[in-house]
Amino acid sequence: MHNSNPNLEAIRMASDRLAGVAVETPLLRNPILDERVNANILIKPECLQRVGAFKFRGAYNRLALLDDTEKQRGVVAYSSGNHAQGVAYAAKLLGIPATIVMPSNAPQIKLERTRAYGAVVKLYDRETESREEIAQQWVESTGAVLIKPFDDPEIIAGQGTCGLEMITQANAQSLSMQTLLLPCGGGGLAAGVSTAAKALIPEIDIYGVEPVGFDDHGQSLRLGRRQAIQEGCQSICDALLIPQPGELTWEINRRTLAGGITVSDTEVAHAISFAYQHLKLVVEPGGAVALAAVLYNKIDLQGKNVGIILSGGNIDPQLFSECLLQWPNP
Amino acid sequence: MHNSNPNLEAIRMASDRLAGVAVETPLLRNPILDERVNANILIKPECLQRVGAFKFRGAYNRLALLDDTEKQRGVVAYSSGNHAQGVAYAAKLLGIPATIVMPSNAPQIKLERTRAYGAVVKLYDRETESREEIAQQWVESTGAVLIKPFDDPEIIAGQGTCGLEMITQANAQSLSMQTLLLPCGGGGLAAGVSTAAKALIPEIDIYGVEPVGFDDHGQSLRLGRRQAIQEGCQSICDALLIPQPGELTWEINRRTLAGGITVSDTEVAHAISFAYQHLKLVVEPGGAVALAAVLYNKIDLQGKNVGIILSGGNIDPQLFSECLLQWPNP
Repeated sequence: MHNSNPNLEAIRMASDRLAGVAVETPLLRNPILDERVNANILIKPECLQRVGAFKFRGAYNRLALLDDTEKQRGVVAYSSGNHAQGVAYAAKLLGIPATIVMPSNAPQIKLERTRAYGAVVKLYDRETESREEIAQQWVESTGAVLIKPFDDPEIIAGQGTCGLEMITQANAQSLSMQTLLLPCGGGGLAAGVSTAAKALIPEIDIYGVEPVGFDDHGQSLRLGRRQAIQEGCQSICDALLIPQPGELTWEINRRTLAGGITVSDTEVAHAISFAYQHLKLVVEPGGAVALAAVLYNKIDLQGKNVGIILSGGNIDPQLFSECLLQWPNP
Repeated sequence: MHNSNPNLEAIRMASDRLAGVAVETPLLRNPILDERVNANILIKPECLQRVGAFKFRGAYNRLALLDDTEKQRGVVAYSSGNHAQGVAYAAKLLGIPATIVMPSNAPQIKLERTRAYGAVVKLYDRETESREEIAQQWVESTGAVLIKPFDDPEIIAGQGTCGLEMITQANAQSLSMQTLLLPCGGGGLAAGVSTAAKALIPEIDIYGVEPVGFDDHGQSLRLGRRQAIQEGCQSICDALLIPQPGELTWEINRRTLAGGITVSDTEVAHAISFAYQHLKLVVEPGGAVALAAVLYNKIDLQGKNVGIILSGGNIDPQLFSECLLQWPNP
């Protein structure tokens, strides 16, 4: 396992590994959305991916590269839910024991699905405990391999396959993306996708979209150095509550991202209802931030070919219903 | 315009007409569903189609074949909502004036979208008025062309493109469908898809799925003649409340369908919640009947390759939320 960041070649190899295992999610168009924002929006619905989120790509790619001894010892991961499910399901497919450290206030749907994939779930308190420490202790006591959620070259390469697919699919429609908006938590999706996209379309502008109060990428990009956000903020985007960019992901994203964009919970709720009503897709809060940025004209997209990633769809029915009823005419 | 029923060649021609206009909806797999029912379920999500339903296929195919004089005079259609939207949007794309006769109790989302596509909507009372008569009067007073919802060879051919696509996509995954379950209202989708499927896979078993109380196809197939259901039943499947098979569609379906299956509103609500939670798709009641039939083991599917069509996704937020909360663990 190398420790330098992946290039396009590593992403292509990940893509070969995932062929026939991951869903090749479609690249959708929606005339209502295009008309509303006067741009060609190319929608990548990773909510249709295995486990309902792009995270399966990186997790499977990483686990497939473990050697037999490592596979026997098993894996451990920490995650608010989508990486958890990705690792749990990839481990199930590959016959690897998996233990996942999850916050006790993670969405119910994410906790249940992770257990349903056969993983052992260890809960921790997001406010008072460190998930990294709990996972590290588990590694030391069992010899399990820690599968980090984003700061790992093969995780990043796996997430990058989503970008490679988008470009291939856009080419098949004779469209070239000029702008790309994607959700940013630890920055693994951004790092992988931007590596692929910048290699193939050097002039593309890529923006990371973050919840208000969790704009660590936005702040870091403005300051030119890796910056943590101030504590104390809240957001419905449970998948994106990472306090600062990863080390490896930042090394990529500082060069590949054109900037950061923030969206509020209300804007995200609106986007969730829009996706329900017009796209017929179930998108979770963290997965809807790029769509929210488009609907609220956060940057000028007039007449452009714009890729957006809807990164996941794991949202509890209660919150989903609230979003729909809050925005009956999105 | 010929009046005999379409063959595979007519469906291929419709497919050429729709290329680049209709969405080539993906053929999805879901490991949770496969494991639960012990079969390989090939899911065709026509909720991702333009206007959120397969109806766009037939409507566009039919309207594209109008001559210039007919296009100028405009079109009229009656529909509970999805054919309405299909005709309205196809008419918009082709620059044709459209008038749609819709029941006053149609789902709000369907009424609004039909108007949003630029059609004039005329409401009628489902209990006391005849939509056919209202449409016929409009034809006589304006010279508009009536676009029937299912009893039209080119509408049937258009819907058939959905089946052609499924078979092509299944072949690309090295799978051949042995069984196919699809929603049955007037029978246009069944007629088109079964024409394509039986031509390419003669041994395939195709079942029409209907709401309890609206099993006119099921009854007709058992009796060997076109049969209307008794009045007085209700169902949440607003798209499938057609009292008897169409004339043209019955001529096809009597030969191509292996039988009819019925599902209850509760089973449909369960399927809607399952599609939300595991498929991340928004499916309307009428669009969820085939999935409900699979989840409730209505016929033996063990070990088989089974195609199902999720025919639409236009459902009001209130009803959708009720389904999710009624079945929190689908």
